[in-house]
Amino acid sequence: MQLRVPGPTPCPPQALKAMGRQMINHRGGEFAKILNSATEKLRQAFQTKGDVFVLTSSGTGGMEAAIVNTLSPGDKVLSISNGAFSERFADIAEGYGAEVIRLSFEWGKAVDLNTVEKTLEADDDIKAILATHNETSTGMTNRLGDISTVVKKFNKLLLVDAISSLGCIDLPTDKWQCDVVVTGSQKGWMAPPGLAMVSVSEKAWRASAQAKMPRYYWDLSKAKDFLQKGQTPWTPAISLFYALDTTLDLILDEGLSNIFARHARVARIAREGVKSLGLSLFPEEEYASNTVTAVSTADNIDIPKLIQVLREEHDVVIAGGQRKLAGKIFRIGHLGAVDDDDIKSVLEALSKALPRAKKD
Amino acid sequence: MQLRVPGPTPCPPQALKAMGRQMINHRGGEFAKILNSATEKLRQAFQTKGDVFVLTSSGTGGMEAAIVNTLSPGDKVLSISNGAFSERFADIAEGYGAEVIRLSFEWGKAVDLNTVEKTLEADDDIKAILATHNETSTGMTNRLGDISTVVKKFNKLLLVDAISSLGCIDLPTDKWQCDVVVTGSQKGWMAPPGLAMVSVSEKAWRASAQAKMPRYYWDLSKAKDFLQKGQTPWTPAISLFYALDTTLDLILDEGLSNIFARHARVARIAREGVKSLGLSLFPEEEYASNTVTAVSTADNIDIPKLIQVLREEHDVVIAGGQRKLAGKIFRIGHLGAVDDDDIKSVLEALSKALPRAKKD
Repeated sequence: MQLRVPGPTPCPPQALKAMGRQMINHRGGEFAKILNSATEKLRQAFQTKGDVFVLTSSGTGGMEAAIVNTLSPGDKVLSISNGAFSERFADIAEGYGAEVIRLSFEWGKAVDLNTVEKTLEADDDIKAILATHNETSTGMTNRLGDISTVVKKFNKLLLVDAISSLGCIDLPTDKWQCDVVVTGSQKGWMAPPGLAMVSVSEKAWRASAQAKMPRYYWDLSKAKDFLQKGQTPWTPAISLFYALDTTLDLILDEGLSNIFARHARVARIAREGVKSLGLSLFPEEEYASNTVTAVSTADNIDIPKLIQVLREEHDVVIAGGQRKLAGKIFRIGHLGAVDDDDIKSVLEALSKALPRAKKD
Repeated sequence: MQLRVPGPTPCPPQALKAMGRQMINHRGGEFAKILNSATEKLRQAFQTKGDVFVLTSSGTGGMEAAIVNTLSPGDKVLSISNGAFSERFADIAEGYGAEVIRLSFEWGKAVDLNTVEKTLEADDDIKAILATHNETSTGMTNRLGDISTVVKKFNKLLLVDAISSLGCIDLPTDKWQCDVVVTGSQKGWMAPPGLAMVSVSEKAWRASAQAKMPRYYWDLSKAKDFLQKGQTPWTPAISLFYALDTTLDLILDEGLSNIFARHARVARIAREGVKSLGLSLFPEEEYASNTVTAVSTADNIDIPKLIQVLREEHDVVIAGGQRKLAGKIFRIGHLGAVDDDDIKSVLEALSKALPRAKKD
């Protein structure tokens, strides 16, 4: 089976082998070695000299951690929103009592930096900005570096959902002054789902000292205390640490810049391929993501049928659209363990499946 | 290596094999089958006709879910506390703004039901009771059935940490009218850590509809909605579901009553064994746990040294004491995949290691 949803991504055999290892004491020296090793490698992959923590949860848990560790109920937060996941980020903040200003742009369309700047200029009370680096729901990558330049002009806290970009698309955490960056093990990291990885800047720690949102499981100051003794505050998903520690070696061996180039190349093949089949990209092409390609079809294509034919007749698993895009787009994930041939075979299957998915 | 801490517990080969399986789409039919199958088997093991959900987190995350789904800030909560984990449960409730009355009994000593009853009688405003079935920190099992009888006389909500008991020690969720019961995959369930399993009664759902504590990742009403389509709200730790679904088959094949009897037998061997070595049980013996034996030594035994000798010279890994019991007790876990011979070999190693751990 070719699993080409935008996460979970296929695990390389080394990761699967690591998953089969027997349990060890999570409060012993052997686990400490793995935790310290994975953390150090993650800091390289995050391009940060700051802290990185690994939480046992999905990426959404990491987003919740980003919010509750830095904010207080009543804090004003600006959410830059142009897809389902940026809306989720705003929902979490709102659920914990932040006053969220939703700066919404059309799904799949670029963020207007001018509007962001004007909003920040007009309201000095805004404490933090929620930004999504790669919108998995629309297959587009927001220009986080440019967003950061605006945000940092006003010296605000920048919280970033980079769940489906980090490790695949360049995101220099420190250079772009991202205060909290969140990702998930089942995306570019080539490990199974179940771990969220979260970086914390000095500025975020200062915010954390004032932040009054309730937190226990997500409390990153506890994670920091325990990491000093090579532990996590709560029992970690040990097997997933085995896998992640293994795939991080693969990642650093390949080299970040080579990985970014591979993702760019594979994504270009995907985009050219779908266009050559007469399909259109859902997002503005110059913002199209290097990890997930979101595709619109002519009205006469039955997208659920197309996905079914691909799965049942070609053993290729892709994703549909989420929320308001359900039934309107399909999405091909090409992140983590993926190379040119993988995506070419998806395109070939797609070319065969398309005629079978025509509406009468 | 013999891993005999009170969790993570050793995984049987079937579970480790399942962990090595490749990823699948968590929004597809194949995962739905596994999720539905595991959920149905968990309902049998929980002895409930109510709902059971599987969250990607450690057991502590499940405790947080129990609190935030049923309570509002300002709610009065009675915490029955006689160990580190019951204190954790109270800390979580307090962190989210509950007014927690801590009914504290000496660690390792029985809960005085009379005091519980008088406290409930004296304060009609108490909304919920936090109870720990098995205190992993002190190696004792609270008489949850008796606690429930008192709590239900006053028709209060009963939230139960059964992380290290469920599936090993009888806990008939419905019969004892437990409203939320929490456990974790790395304990009696013989799977690796990373999943919390949580049951929800009708009464808990009614409380949930009124509960105002903030929740997003832990929102069990979202879990219920998604379960209806064979999904989890957030990307689940797929591999751990593979393992849990497998070990649940082993559990139901062996049969709950046989498993309870095996744990009782193994625990008796552990208790008799440590006593025959001149050591004492930390908790009151009639409350001693069938999943973890906590042991006090004479003052002339260096416990950290004992644990080190066991690990380095006998390949047996046991746990020390937590918080105020650090350096004062050691703990042998005997839950999940454990039989008479396993614990006998731990006792034999212990008999050899003890003389080596004598202080000068």
